[in-house]
Amino acid sequence: MFDFNYFTPTKVVFGKNTEAKVADLVKEFGGTKLLIHYGGGSVVRSGLLKRVTDTLDAAGISYVTLGGAVPNPHLGLVYEGIELCKKEGVDFLLAVGGGSAIDSAKAIGYGVANEGDVWDFYDYKRQAKGCLPVGVILTIAATGSEMSDSSVITKEDGLVKRGYSSDFGRPKFAIMNPELTMTLPDYQTACGCTDIMMHTMERYFSNGGNMEITDSLAEGLLRTVKKNALILYKDPKNYDARAEVMWAGSLAHNGLTGCGNDGGDWMTHKLEHELGGLYDVAHGAGLAAIWGSWARYVYKNCLHRFKKFALNVMEVENSGSDEEIALRGIEAVEDFYRQIEMPTNLRELGINPTEDELALMAKKCAIGVGGEKGSAKVLNEADMLAIYKASM
Amino acid sequence: MFDFNYFTPTKVVFGKNTEAKVADLVKEFGGTKLLIHYGGGSVVRSGLLKRVTDTLDAAGISYVTLGGAVPNPHLGLVYEGIELCKKEGVDFLLAVGGGSAIDSAKAIGYGVANEGDVWDFYDYKRQAKGCLPVGVILTIAATGSEMSDSSVITKEDGLVKRGYSSDFGRPKFAIMNPELTMTLPDYQTACGCTDIMMHTMERYFSNGGNMEITDSLAEGLLRTVKKNALILYKDPKNYDARAEVMWAGSLAHNGLTGCGNDGGDWMTHKLEHELGGLYDVAHGAGLAAIWGSWARYVYKNCLHRFKKFALNVMEVENSGSDEEIALRGIEAVEDFYRQIEMPTNLRELGINPTEDELALMAKKCAIGVGGEKGSAKVLNEADMLAIYKASM
Repeated sequence: MFDFNYFTPTKVVFGKNTEAKVADLVKEFGGTKLLIHYGGGSVVRSGLLKRVTDTLDAAGISYVTLGGAVPNPHLGLVYEGIELCKKEGVDFLLAVGGGSAIDSAKAIGYGVANEGDVWDFYDYKRQAKGCLPVGVILTIAATGSEMSDSSVITKEDGLVKRGYSSDFGRPKFAIMNPELTMTLPDYQTACGCTDIMMHTMERYFSNGGNMEITDSLAEGLLRTVKKNALILYKDPKNYDARAEVMWAGSLAHNGLTGCGNDGGDWMTHKLEHELGGLYDVAHGAGLAAIWGSWARYVYKNCLHRFKKFALNVMEVENSGSDEEIALRGIEAVEDFYRQIEMPTNLRELGINPTEDELALMAKKCAIGVGGEKGSAKVLNEADMLAIYKASM
Repeated sequence: MFDFNYFTPTKVVFGKNTEAKVADLVKEFGGTKLLIHYGGGSVVRSGLLKRVTDTLDAAGISYVTLGGAVPNPHLGLVYEGIELCKKEGVDFLLAVGGGSAIDSAKAIGYGVANEGDVWDFYDYKRQAKGCLPVGVILTIAATGSEMSDSSVITKEDGLVKRGYSSDFGRPKFAIMNPELTMTLPDYQTACGCTDIMMHTMERYFSNGGNMEITDSLAEGLLRTVKKNALILYKDPKNYDARAEVMWAGSLAHNGLTGCGNDGGDWMTHKLEHELGGLYDVAHGAGLAAIWGSWARYVYKNCLHRFKKFALNVMEVENSGSDEEIALRGIEAVEDFYRQIEMPTNLRELGINPTEDELALMAKKCAIGVGGEKGSAKVLNEADMLAIYKASM
């Protein structure tokens, strides 16, 4: 196993009506003037935003608001938020929403706390030296951004989608009320479950340094999400299933399920980022559409892990050769995707890239990872193109 | 499931030679004048203390030292540490050792950061409003105090052993090098594994609010420790097994394996605390000696959990009635204790209390928990006495 650091300072306040605690938490972490950052109208329509501002008003905490965070959040809005924070003297960012609002808030936080262009951090040019504190009221279980060190931003010019990770960006608190996720469209719920599982699967399919305890936590988490995703497909208002998935979402991406390994593979995410940059598809659905092709392309190079995954997570029949078991596990994942109406290829995702577009995505993906990357199997541009083609 | 908070801010730096990073970590968390608190001579004899002070010297960080923390750490030494810190202007506590040194350092931290008698916190009289920051270099995998909010101190007058929990006491960082645990006597290694498992078992055997994901993490952790405890019994220098157990020790007690439940049972710990207060036995061995009697006394009141534990952790045969499966699981735990030479009753623990002493312990235990306590089954003084008697 490899040495590792583990740092998850986010204070999680989990359960019904926990959003009522927002003012106390903001005060605990020193916020006096907030930017409340959210996405589309659902946070407004549901009345959540008003409940939050009423609570802040009652506590005498002042704030400005900035809506409009979209899936694959845009750099333009980040710049707008940075200017607004500077103009208004904001000292705390409150993200109300899912990964888009949180990622965007983190980027705004980096932009306020550091000189120069915030895109530099996403463009691998330099490291942030701080971040304005971020608090979260989570409304979508998916990205795990509420406890993670990472954020993903899309630069509109060239549709470049990039992630940046820094412990400075880890939220100070995360308010997690499973009831807030009940009004999500079924498709978004399924996308979230896919994303959650993928965050842990990316760490799991690695060729270096795996720890038994990390594996057992990862496998338990994956089984739980799989089971509860199927429950939610039939019963979206099931509180316990919502809660299981919501908490799994945080644990899947706060680092816990990667302790001791080489950092994981992450190529499914990288391949999807190019889809997301070019087509603005839902992240979870994009991951589902690409994963099977990735898995079949790489599994022979990481056979022991694919076999273990097949048996301990997908619980397939333990018979035949290692390859047969591994392939049975991959098929079982795709069957699971179909059961929750996730796509298993680009056509089902609703896109039909040309040869040139596939080549462009492979080229951008290779540039994005600095040439080649992967742990289950190191992929170069030609490999990436082959996987994109196989996923058509 | 129940609502919960989860807060584990400790920065974990895990792996070989990580103690070399101590000066950087102390600086990161603002320490300028340290009290280095440690236990017996092993930290001195092994050369670890010198390596640490050399690193601090090279970084220009000044410090004073206080050794002498013993298992079931004493209040007298805590008072001594508080005086020393005040006299020397200490602003950071570095615990080098196991749970005794860490718990004692936390208590010193409460004593320095709050007015009045520090014992008040352990005597349920009031809550701490802060704690001097604590950093840890861990040398024993057992108590989980390196990430937990709890510390246990014994007041010499009356041999009263009490725990106090506060988020203020959670260490800022924990340096965890599995190699540092390799020189432990085999008995202490086995005690540590027992304590680690018990921290999660106390949370697991509860009648309220269990979450599937918490259960799956707990079961995975318990299987991992059980397996690696047996490896270490035969091969104490096995680095990977040391690492598995060490990381499990932190996760077993940082709150992760109790999220969503009612807080757990904890009566085995409470019953052992009285043993530890009166006889100065090793904590882990005391837990092992009492657990089987506790389990047989309560299992019918928490049958579904004992059955699940038997199947998913102890992996016993799934046949017969629920009661038979549950009892098979309890027997399997005792068999496991015997395999690693842990006691399964007070006689094997090496003590032989009189009737009066048993009654005194039951009485003190009942007072300590405010009359009655437990989740698997609520126990009063008569129940406690019955369990003590059954464990003879």
